[in-house]
Amino acid sequence: MNYVTGVVMQFTTKNASEVIIKARGKFISRAVDVAEVASKRFLDNAVNVKDILINSEEFQSQEGKPVRVSTIEITLTKQ
Amino acid sequence: MNYVTGVVMQFTTKNASEVIIKARGKFISRAVDVAEVASKRFLDNAVNVKDILINSEEFQSQEGKPVRVSTIEITLTKQ
Repeated sequence: MNYVTGVVMQFTTKNASEVIIKARGKFISRAVDVAEVASKRFLDNAVNVKDILINSEEFQSQEGKPVRVSTIEITLTKQ
Repeated sequence: MNYVTGVVMQFTTKNASEVIIKARGKFISRAVDVAEVASKRFLDNAVNVKDILINSEEFQSQEGKPVRVSTIEITLTKQ
């Protein structure tokens, strides 16, 4: 719920016109939850999902092997 | 890897022009992994992410409480 509060506060007390939620790996589903709850429960008819991007990042594991991890960026905007 | 094979086979042996990957809850991150690996490692320059939709579903828990779960639909298309 902390992340939802963070997003909602950006739009309300900080008066942001756009908030981008980013996550990697298994936290991607959490980012979707945050976007859904913020835009539908708290800011219904005020904030929309404008864009969703997915991508991959590669890095080296501790054993020196290349590891691929998925990423997501969800852009919420005021209607 | 099974889901990736399934998506790749739809495009190759089944000659599909579009494949939609759907998931709910914590499996959303898996759906993103499948889309990324299928479109970038196996079908690079042949298949693109065309659209990503997120939504919520509500159902009743065994205790009769309403439960919200996030969903995702990732549409891949041939270039």
